[in-house]
Amino acid sequence: MKLASYSEEELEAFYAECKAAYAGYKAQGLKLDMSRGKPSPEQLDLSAGLLDCVSNEDMHGEAGDYRNYGVLDGIPEAKRLFAPMLGVEPDEVFLLGNASLQAMYMTISYAYSHGLMGHTPWGRLEKVKFLCPVPGYDRHFKITEFFGAQMINIPMTAEGPDMDRIEKLVSEDASVKGIWCVPQYSNPTGIVYSDETVRRFGALKPAAPDFRIFWDNAYCIHHLCDAPHTIPSILEECRKNGNEDMVIEFASTAKVTFAGAGVCMMAASRATLDDLTKGLSCFTICFDKTNQMRHVKFFDGDFANIQSHMEKHRAILEPKFRTVLDILKRELAPLEIGSWTEPKGGYFVSFDAPQGCAKRIVQLCKEAGVVLTGAGAAFPYGVDPEDKNIRIAPSYPSVSELEKAMELFVLCVKMAAAEKLLA
Amino acid sequence: MKLASYSEEELEAFYAECKAAYAGYKAQGLKLDMSRGKPSPEQLDLSAGLLDCVSNEDMHGEAGDYRNYGVLDGIPEAKRLFAPMLGVEPDEVFLLGNASLQAMYMTISYAYSHGLMGHTPWGRLEKVKFLCPVPGYDRHFKITEFFGAQMINIPMTAEGPDMDRIEKLVSEDASVKGIWCVPQYSNPTGIVYSDETVRRFGALKPAAPDFRIFWDNAYCIHHLCDAPHTIPSILEECRKNGNEDMVIEFASTAKVTFAGAGVCMMAASRATLDDLTKGLSCFTICFDKTNQMRHVKFFDGDFANIQSHMEKHRAILEPKFRTVLDILKRELAPLEIGSWTEPKGGYFVSFDAPQGCAKRIVQLCKEAGVVLTGAGAAFPYGVDPEDKNIRIAPSYPSVSELEKAMELFVLCVKMAAAEKLLA
Repeated sequence: MKLASYSEEELEAFYAECKAAYAGYKAQGLKLDMSRGKPSPEQLDLSAGLLDCVSNEDMHGEAGDYRNYGVLDGIPEAKRLFAPMLGVEPDEVFLLGNASLQAMYMTISYAYSHGLMGHTPWGRLEKVKFLCPVPGYDRHFKITEFFGAQMINIPMTAEGPDMDRIEKLVSEDASVKGIWCVPQYSNPTGIVYSDETVRRFGALKPAAPDFRIFWDNAYCIHHLCDAPHTIPSILEECRKNGNEDMVIEFASTAKVTFAGAGVCMMAASRATLDDLTKGLSCFTICFDKTNQMRHVKFFDGDFANIQSHMEKHRAILEPKFRTVLDILKRELAPLEIGSWTEPKGGYFVSFDAPQGCAKRIVQLCKEAGVVLTGAGAAFPYGVDPEDKNIRIAPSYPSVSELEKAMELFVLCVKMAAAEKLLA
Repeated sequence: MKLASYSEEELEAFYAECKAAYAGYKAQGLKLDMSRGKPSPEQLDLSAGLLDCVSNEDMHGEAGDYRNYGVLDGIPEAKRLFAPMLGVEPDEVFLLGNASLQAMYMTISYAYSHGLMGHTPWGRLEKVKFLCPVPGYDRHFKITEFFGAQMINIPMTAEGPDMDRIEKLVSEDASVKGIWCVPQYSNPTGIVYSDETVRRFGALKPAAPDFRIFWDNAYCIHHLCDAPHTIPSILEECRKNGNEDMVIEFASTAKVTFAGAGVCMMAASRATLDDLTKGLSCFTICFDKTNQMRHVKFFDGDFANIQSHMEKHRAILEPKFRTVLDILKRELAPLEIGSWTEPKGGYFVSFDAPQGCAKRIVQLCKEAGVVLTGAGAAFPYGVDPEDKNIRIAPSYPSVSELEKAMELFVLCVKMAAAEKLLA
């Protein structure tokens, strides 16, 4: 029976039972962290070979001595390795440092201080607006908040962000300068943009000539299913519409090899990369080419090897996602409290509690020793207008820890829901 | 006899002789590059062990799993290793990516977009001035030019930059926001700032509360002599004057281990590092901790091992510097054309040709196959007001290549000087 149909008496009995169970959890002194999408030690061990797969001789590559200065945009061997991951030509790839957030920050920082392709620097404009599909990635929002953009929430549908709203805002308002997208296994919903959504992105007719799609394809090869649906190339879609400078795609091997020591990449039109190079060539002489070469050697220069490497990640991650989903279904579905996504890839399960309950759930979990991502974190300014979304990150804990954490989690959802109904 | 005392007839004979020799060089089809301060392959080989000195187990350090996300400011093991190099406490060290230019760029970019420690962002000011001791490092000047600062040349003396002028400008003009310094083996003069100069830097009383000294200690351990003179700690000197937030020190292992894959470091007061962290925490989740750990393991966590490693660099570099200086002395001293520095460390010899001759010399060298750093490169906006300075970078070529290149160089100096006298 759904919780909303309980009588007040039944609800009180239900709540008392929950409270007793909760006290038991508290006594256990749990200490579990599900706050961030961190790979587990077991996953990191998959890339142990990355640490010692190169020798001094391997550092003499096609573009010279990779121990020395030079080759700002990345070594050709690694561009060829990663181009198929991004769905572009090697010539459209720019390789940077150890994580892709840096590339996004640099792009937005450059747009603010110097302007993209000769357009007015955003920092000189009265107002800059950024569209933010929600729930989304907190670190994206942190960058645009840092630079003072006004962020506008865009609701997500099962097909991706609400394209009607985006098309309207982008075409009517020249102060709309960008949008954050995680198109494949969106953070945190796991939603894969439909082909139609990607097509509509490519066909946008922005009022601002320097409107840009920040296409963070962080999970493009992070499947948790057979025969995954993969999205069309956004650069290609933009190009079809004569708009190839409208998008910058980002990705990295942070969740392929090492989270703190991967290779970060951008893909964009040559004109866009040439423009961004004006800033990047002041920023550094080159990025770490030895680490680029390490990745080339570890994967034997072949994208197919990256894909089979990702199958090993899947084998570790899939049981964890199943644990989360099984417990949610078993404990919450009958009561009809909350809803959640069942992602086919990526790093998160997005949980929607009854309205006004997310903060309370996170607080209850914390008091019993389980740290979740802060309620609201997946929204601009940390504000979830309905206080209902919680991002569950199953990757780091072991399956048995996860079971314990999720048992507590569903208990806290029940308590918060009951409190709301009783109030 | 000095060239200036030659009769016109003697000069013409001298010039004809030079031209004949020059034609001979041209026929040789030389192809040598002395344009940048790149370490030679032999030097890079010294750190070959860096590539395979760590295993998966080494990645579990004091601050957790170094393959994963986290530890934005650098691993404690590496902070302890590098703190003595910078003359500060480990707590005053912030470790970043693969090269220090990035740290300088990020600091200046942050000052422009957000302002240092709550001060008005430089990007919002009518005018921002930067003092630039000349000749200096072109990539410094490129950053401040990129952000639109007005750069003011400050002449160098044998003791460091002209402190009378600096004290006057800094104390009287609140639009003077910064100064670029390479205090130990200045790029390109090789000058070591005297203790008195460093003391006067620490005692500056700037009109602007957000005036900063950008102390690029790139060559702090790059000695080419016994018992080198090392400079006092600038952070300490500033602190003595209650001015500890006035300086940010930069360094890296770019010319210790691998030029493209070192570890970059900043040292500053805690308040300064905390302030810069506001931007850096949006820029990235963490820098590459595996490479930091690689350096810790390679040097066995002991700064003394870095120092003895530098002795091996010295053994390779010293003969190259000697070659350059010997040829300059033998060929140009008797004629009294040009003057040059005799550095006790660092990467360059700074050569001053007769006024108005630098561009011509670089051009002559280039036409005969030897590429030098562009004339004027060591000055803001690439403009050497006297067109006399040429930066000689002896590190990359072999001694025999260097001999050939320097023979050509002195010939070109002679030709340009004779042309000038004949004109």
